[in-house]
Formats: sequence, structure tokens, C-alpha cells
Amino acid sequence: MFVLGPNRYGKAETRVVRVTKHGDAHHIKDLNVSTSLSGDMTEVHLSGDNAAILATDTQKNTVFAFAKKHGIGAAEDFALLLARHFVDSQPTIHRARVAIDEYGWDRRGGHSFARNGRETRTCVVHYDGEQAWVVSGLKDLVLLNTTNSEFWGFVRDEYTTLPETRDRILATAVTATWRHSGTSDWDKSYEKARQALMAAFADTYSLSLQQTLYAMGSRVLTECPEIAEVRLELPNKHHFLADLSPFGLDNDGEVFIAADRPYGLIEGAVLREGAPGAGPAWD
Amino acid sequence: MFVLGPNRYGKAETRVVRVTKHGDAHHIKDLNVSTSLSGDMTEVHLSGDNAAILATDTQKNTVFAFAKKHGIGAAEDFALLLARHFVDSQPTIHRARVAIDEYGWDRRGGHSFARNGRETRTCVVHYDGEQAWVVSGLKDLVLLNTTNSEFWGFVRDEYTTLPETRDRILATAVTATWRHSGTSDWDKSYEKARQALMAAFADTYSLSLQQTLYAMGSRVLTECPEIAEVRLELPNKHHFLADLSPFGLDNDGEVFIAADRPYGLIEGAVLREGAPGAGPAWD
Amino acid sequence: MFVLGPNRYGKAETRVVRVTKHGDAHHIKDLNVSTSLSGDMTEVHLSGDNAAILATDTQKNTVFAFAKKHGIGAAEDFALLLARHFVDSQPTIHRARVAIDEYGWDRRGGHSFARNGRETRTCVVHYDGEQAWVVSGLKDLVLLNTTNSEFWGFVRDEYTTLPETRDRILATAVTATWRHSGTSDWDKSYEKARQALMAAFADTYSLSLQQTLYAMGSRVLTECPEIAEVRLELPNKHHFLADLSPFGLDNDGEVFIAADRPYGLIEGAVLREGAPGAGPAWD
Amino acid sequence: MFVLGPNRYGKAETRVVRVTKHGDAHHIKDLNVSTSLSGDMTEVHLSGDNAAILATDTQKNTVFAFAKKHGIGAAEDFALLLARHFVDSQPTIHRARVAIDEYGWDRRGGHSFARNGRETRTCVVHYDGEQAWVVSGLKDLVLLNTTNSEFWGFVRDEYTTLPETRDRILATAVTATWRHSGTSDWDKSYEKARQALMAAFADTYSLSLQQTLYAMGSRVLTECPEIAEVRLELPNKHHFLADLSPFGLDNDGEVFIAADRPYGLIEGAVLREGAPGAGPAWD
Repeated sequence: MFVLGPNRYGKAETRVVRVTKHGDAHHIKDLNVSTSLSGDMTEVHLSGDNAAILATDTQKNTVFAFAKKHGIGAAEDFALLLARHFVDSQPTIHRARVAIDEYGWDRRGGHSFARNGRETRTCVVHYDGEQAWVVSGLKDLVLLNTTNSEFWGFVRDEYTTLPETRDRILATAVTATWRHSGTSDWDKSYEKARQALMAAFADTYSLSLQQTLYAMGSRVLTECPEIAEVRLELPNKHHFLADLSPFGLDNDGEVFIAADRPYGLIEGAVLREGAPGAGPAWD
Repeated sequence: MFVLGPNRYGKAETRVVRVTKHGDAHHIKDLNVSTSLSGDMTEVHLSGDNAAILATDTQKNTVFAFAKKHGIGAAEDFALLLARHFVDSQPTIHRARVAIDEYGWDRRGGHSFARNGRETRTCVVHYDGEQAWVVSGLKDLVLLNTTNSEFWGFVRDEYTTLPETRDRILATAVTATWRHSGTSDWDKSYEKARQALMAAFADTYSLSLQQTLYAMGSRVLTECPEIAEVRLELPNKHHFLADLSPFGLDNDGEVFIAADRPYGLIEGAVLREGAPGAGPAWD
Repeated sequence: MFVLGPNRYGKAETRVVRVTKHGDAHHIKDLNVSTSLSGDMTEVHLSGDNAAILATDTQKNTVFAFAKKHGIGAAEDFALLLARHFVDSQPTIHRARVAIDEYGWDRRGGHSFARNGRETRTCVVHYDGEQAWVVSGLKDLVLLNTTNSEFWGFVRDEYTTLPETRDRILATAVTATWRHSGTSDWDKSYEKARQALMAAFADTYSLSLQQTLYAMGSRVLTECPEIAEVRLELPNKHHFLADLSPFGLDNDGEVFIAADRPYGLIEGAVLREGAPGAGPAWD
Repeated sequence: MFVLGPNRYGKAETRVVRVTKHGDAHHIKDLNVSTSLSGDMTEVHLSGDNAAILATDTQKNTVFAFAKKHGIGAAEDFALLLARHFVDSQPTIHRARVAIDEYGWDRRGGHSFARNGRETRTCVVHYDGEQAWVVSGLKDLVLLNTTNSEFWGFVRDEYTTLPETRDRILATAVTATWRHSGTSDWDKSYEKARQALMAAFADTYSLSLQQTLYAMGSRVLTECPEIAEVRLELPNKHHFLADLSPFGLDNDGEVFIAADRPYGLIEGAVLREGAPGAGPAWD
């Protein structure tokens, strides 16, 4: 009568910091690791029989142990290592998903660091015992153009009051994820993709945020042949021109109200033609 | 070379409060409405031609205008009304997604209210011009059992240190969503589903959080024949027994440390056998 | 040349959950405890000599050990117990401040609970080895009146554009703290003060949020002779009337935009005449 | 019987963005401005008579109008301008407090910017019609040393279990505020103070976080003769050494658990001897 549908379980947000010391020069990796496993899990759901369960506490321990044993290079490699370990070592585990957020630090001396507060670097890895899928990305990259943005020519129905504009602030907090065709030099690929996103945002004379989105996605694909698909979520962080006319002041694109809610939200994907299928990459 | 993939755009988090006055007795509905539209959007992405775009500002206006014209009853009905309007009135819009969060208020007098701070009620509606799909749900329902929870018999590999336990606190913050087979008395259905979730959590002698999850999902299906599928995300909000032995004190399930991170995360679905397909309901 | 000014140190946000079992009926207290100590701390600042320091880890341990040894009744009593212990047991510690947030749970069965999500109950206790000061309070109590609020007759200078209004929504998220003259039945006093705040908010026909603030504070003092002073922070959670005139719709106090920022912020104190001095109570 | 105590009211979190255009080179200032006024406010509290009230909406308008009329240079100057305007132009307003948070942006082109996500710069200005007090500061400056931190020699009472350590990670999120003796080149002073805080944190071989705090405060006073007092709040963001011994691995300061709660919290002030009194600067 009732059946168990898709399910997974794991340990979310294991906060691991790995220090590597080369003499007086220390290096730091600061990650937030979330692991999820799935497989033969019918019994645990139906009867609470945990024989197939690798405890989430064990998953957490594995993160810390692997940080020591293998070190942490690119987050993607660490995620792949964990995903493969869980599936390959446990007969009841058939699929693993490992998601990592990485926080950046700027060096302030041999052993001293300041968190840089830039965007958070992200990755999500899936592994099914045979194949792995790698998605990299970033979030909270806040960008703003003070000009070169217009918005006009849209549908006017009975509920439309928005005036057309030939000059506005365009601001967004980029969440981007990109799917790799295969393995890559993850760090180098990340830096190229990040630069491509920022450059396309700055360079595009924008008639709509959708156009900017497509420009950003296709710029990543142009610069990074190793990437098959880019997905973007671009909130339109509205900056409304303050109405200063009651005070006898004009406002030629000088004073803005940074609004919180509501906000536009533009979501879209750009794919390389003939790209391999996504499989479970986006789950 | 590059192709536009799935995309949608809309206005997120329009915060509308609707007051209805029956003489001295006022009623209040407090919603956070997010609308997303998709359709013939290639041109806007490629060239910034906005001819197919119903501006997100217009979507917001429509929310407020409809709140006046039609009032707000169940959130699901309001979402359906909006979704149908956007698709049916605009030739370029082929699909709409409307998501609503609803905050509850307790009456403190004829015109005075206190926000109840219980769970947030949620719904997501999809409409493609022909068919509608309705998912209802809740989030931030925090539940805790002080006993009747065990966890043992799990895999012990080289990274396993967790002792088995025959008595622990089980606590979670429920995010639940359920898919309706058709239309329903949404408010009544919500109240039944909510009660079923809470009752199943309280009643289940738990050997694993997965078992509790399945019990909660199947209880909803049992109590609510109008529901085809339930999806649950149950973080395991760990409450660790404080080690008081250094102070010569025992701790027989009395003093706990409420931990933040990491946390277990158990996700799963329970479906009614022979339920209709989900279509885009979960997108 | 440089001198050390006021200082204190401690452990913030120790999350302790205490379960008490009377047969099958379990009781739960859920606290967030922050302790701060001060005293002869010049050396630790100047040279890092920790001889006067009771480690913040020890403070945390004490919270858990006391939860077991003494149980937890009213948060104020638990705070007093901790504050007295630190100062009376350590010759280098001369003053303690213990602040507690308490989260409420509703019973859903003998051993099952749902977090009620109402306001958070708070207290702050100071102790200097001789005297104790107790401040109780609450935060995040969100109240709203759909009518009986006006705002007019204010100053109109060259930057004033706000129209006068004879009917508006008045909404706030109450942060209130009240200082006791002496010891009290803390739980009973809390319930009376909370009810007084809510009743005064509901009953006051408001010409300004300041007037409502004063009414709330004086109602607490009227109902609770044990309280010497009440301090209130009342954000004016603006609900703006949606302008529906472009759509040919009127809006007679029916549809509102719940705004985030900016918000009014009204702060004030109401004291009982001849109340004893506050000492360090508000530090 | 009851008397009105200290009170103030204002508009909090007005989010103003000011663009200045020098040909193709645009500049941006991004502020969050909170204004509070006080004065002859007895009547508004007692009877709701608003004759003395400069509406918070007017305060907000003034922020936007002044951003246009006067531009925005250093946040301190903008705060002083606003504070003086409110008090000097309104006979019923006797004191103003203006607090500003400023978010930094990195230039990515002539008109393109990326939010830098570093610390938030802050200031609080008080003005009473005759004198002004200026406090500058920063928050959310996250710093970490991977070594050169010890903690030992502290009190061991019956609740002490913490082992002594000769090497640990020391990490904190700095909130610092500093009081100026007079006017200053605010931007230059800010940069010097910020560098002093970071340099002192990096350079100090730390035996306690209190010692580091004092070193940071006194370094600011040394580098910035225009500053009379520094106040610091330093949460001890604990990084616990992961126990890898169950897996046969040692952990010589390599793998850490970044904990959330509880956290140590160290607060203290460092003053220049003979500094002028603080007046209302810290209110």
C-alpha cells in the first residue's frame, strides 16, 4: 500500500579545518563537508534494523581521519575520495553524495590569516560505484554595475506600473554551479570560471538580467572547455532611485535605496551543445 | 555551440498581509509569496529583447491586487489563482510556479494578534496551462522525545567510535512536503497532516530516525487519502549526554548538550502505491 | 600610558537541556546560558599570566554539573546559583554576570514535546559577592493590531512627506526587560508581566508607538509590584498600505506590504517612583 | 507613581547607496544608517501628542536628501552632518545618535564592483547641541593564528577538566570600537587602526586571549594618537583538535573541528592615560 521512495541520509556540515606546516609557512583549508549515502535502506525504514547503516557519526569521523591521512587539496578531490571510500568499502551503500563549502583566507604572515569574506566556493560530487559526477560552483558573490543596464520593452498588462528605464543599477548575489565533463585541475578551473563570471557581468551592456545570465554562463563555457553546463541563480537585488523631488532635488542615478524584499529571481542554465548527460549530477 | 537550458524568472518573497473585517472581528493572513514563470524565453536570454517578459514588478503587483480582489483563503487556492492567471493571460508564459510560506497568528482580541511562532505552513503550485500540481507542507516544526529512542546494530568499520545506545533524546526540525492527488479542502488536509506528523513522531518507539521518518510519512498517507506522496527532511538535532563523571556525578539521561553542527540529515519519501505521477510537482 | 578599562570574560551560549522524569511524565528545560566573570584581571591582560582565570571551559562544565546537582527551576534561580558559585568560590573573581535565554516547549505526550516558538524568555543576573540584581524579560514577541492606531500631528519640516493617518496597522517585535526590586516567584512574575505587555498592547488605542510603549511598561508595573523598572525596545514593523489605485481598486485597510528595512525603533524605560537604584543591573 | 526613564526613537537601517560619477569612473558608498533622537518626549509617551516628534519617516528622507545634497565621504562626517541637522533644526530634539555600518566594494572596472566581504566598518556619533562624540570601529573581522598560542596556568577547581596546552589555534571575529579625542582624518585613522588590530593579532605570541586583546588595543593607541580608548569583543572561536587516536593516527596540530557554540567571549577596554571623559559616546 505504501512504498519507500527516494531516500538518503548522512552527516551535514562537518566543519573541518586542516593545517599544513612547511617549516614556518602554514597553510589552511577551511571546509564545511556534508555527506549523504543511499543504498539498501528498506529495512531501516520499515523496522529500524540498522544493519545496513554506516552511522552518520562514522561519516563525520571519516572526514576528520581522511583530512589527516590524505591531506586536503582541491575540495573536489577530497569529496571524490570520501564518496569513493563510502561506496567502495560498504556493500550496502550504493551511492554517495558529498557536498563541500570552502571558505577562503588571506595570508597575513607565516601562520596568521584573515578570512577573506569573498564568495564561498562549493562543490557537489556524486559516485555510484562506477562513475563520478562533479559539479563545482560558488555562492554569495555580490556584483554591482552602476550603469550599462536598461530595462524596457516588456509586456504591459493591467497590473503593470513599472516605468521603462534606460539606466539603472544592476546588482546580484551570484549562485553559480557548473558541471564538469571529466576530471580537471579543479583549482585552476575554478579560478577561470570565477573570473569569467565576473568579467561577463562587468562587460555586458545589459538589457535584462536574463541576458546577463546567459552572457555569464556562455563566458564560462568559452573560457573553460572542461565544463559542460553552467547553472545560475541571480537574485535581482533592486536598488530603487530615491524620489528626491519633494525636496526640490533631482536624482540622476546618484542616490539609491537598497531593497531587501521582494527581489527578482532569475534562474537559468547554459549548456555546451553535445554535452554528456547530467546523470545524478544535480540531485 | 551553447544552448539555453531550463530557466525561469519571477519575484521572490512578496510579503503580503491581508486583513478582512467582519464588523469588529478582524482576520489576518500573512504570506510570503514567490512567483516564477517560464515559456518562450530564448530571445530575452540571447538578445535582451523583453517582449515576452511579464516583469517581476508586475508579478508583485498582481499578488497585491489579487489579495484585494479575491481575498486570501487557503494559501493553495491563492497560489492556484495566481498561477492560472499568469499562464492563461500571457501567451508567452507556458508554466508558472507559485510558492507560498504562511505565518500563523493567534488571536488576542477582536483586532489584536500575536504571531504564534509555530511551524511555517508552505505550498508550491505548478500550472502548465492544462494541469495543476499542488504540494503542501510545513517547515521548522521542532519535535523532541525524551525517551523511546534507541540506536544500535549499525555497521562498525575502522572509523566507527559511536557507542550503541538503548535510550537517547530524539529531536528534529521537521520539513515535510506532501503531494495531493487532486484538489482538497486544503486547510482541513493541512491540519490532519500536521497532526499525523506530530502523533507519529510521539508514538513511534524509534530504533532509527529513518524508521520514525517512514512512520511519519505513512501516518500522513493513512490519515489523508487525498495525499499521494510525502517527502521528509529530518535533521537529527543531536543532544549529547554531558559527561559528568569527572565531577563524581552520574547522568542517567538527565543533562544534555544541544549541539549545532554537524547534524545528521535523514531524507526520504513515502508514496501511496499506484499514486499518479509527480510531473513537475517537486521542481 | 595605557590603562586597562572595564573587562570581563566568560563562556557564551552553553546550550543545556535538562530532563526530569517523574515516572512516565518527563519535564524539559531548554536553556542557552552565558556566563561572564570579572575581578583581578590586570595580569592576564598585561602578561598572559592565567593564575586568576577560571577557564571558560570550566564555566561551561559548571553549568552542566549544576544542572544535574541542583536541577533547573526558574532560569533566574539557576542564574543566581551559578553567579554566587563563581564569585564565592574564587578569590580572584569579584563579579559575575549570568544571562539565560529559555526556549519553551509544549507537551505532546508523556515524553514528547513540540517547541512552541513563542517569545524567548530571558534573564540577566549580576552578583558582586554581596548583592544580586535580577533582570527578567522576553524577546521576539511579535504583536499586531489591525486597527486602533493613528499617527498625526507630528512636526512637518522640509523633509517630511509622510501623510497623517487615522488608521493603520501597528506591529512590533517586543524586546522587554524588567528589573526586580528583590526576589520573587520568578515564573509567576514572568507570566504576569508577559500578560500585562500583551494586554496593554491590545487595549491601547494608540496615537504613537511611544504611547503604546509607556502603556505597556506602566501596565507591567501596575500588575507586578515586585518590579521596579521596565525597559522596552519596540521596532515599528511597518505595514504599508498597498497602492491599488492603478488597478482601479480601493484599499480600505485591507492589503498591506510587510516591510523589512528601514524600520522605526522606539526605546524607552518606565520606572516606579522611588524605585531602588539599578546598580550594575543593566550592564 | 510611574516615571518615564531614558528614551529615544528613530529610523533604523536605512540602506542608502550613493553613486558618484567622475566621467567614466564611478564611485560607490554603501551604508546602513540608523538615527535616534531624544529630547522633550514626555507628552508623546503620556498622551500620544506628537507635536515634538520628527517622524522616523522624515529621518529616513533626510538621509537620502543629504546623500544627494552633501554627498557621502567618510561615514563619520555623514553621521555628524545628520546628527547636527536634527538637533540644530528642531527645538524639541536635544540629542541625536547616528550609527552607520559601511560595506566595502572592490572595483572591477569603471562602473563595476564586487562586494569585498571583509569586515564591516562602523561608526556611532552623538551630538547634544554643543559637543559631538565620535566612535569608529569594525565588526566581523575574522582572524586566525595556526600557532603561537598557549593556554595554561589557569585555576583548577573541581569542575576543571581542560588540559593545559602549549600550542593551539587562536581564532576570533573581532568587534572593535574606538573613541576619538577630537576630529580626525577618519578614513586614514580607520586604515591605521585596522592595520594595527591585524598586526597585533598576528605578532602577539599569545598566552591568553586577554593578552592578545590588550596587545590589540594598545597597538591601536600607539599607532593612532588621535584615539583615546579602544573597546574589543573577541569571541574565542574554538578549534578543537580532532581525536584521531581511535584510528591509529596522531594529530600534531593538523586537523581541527571548528566549533559553533559555546564559545569563549573576552571583552575589554584599553584607554590612553589622561584621556578625556567618554560622555555619552558609548550609549
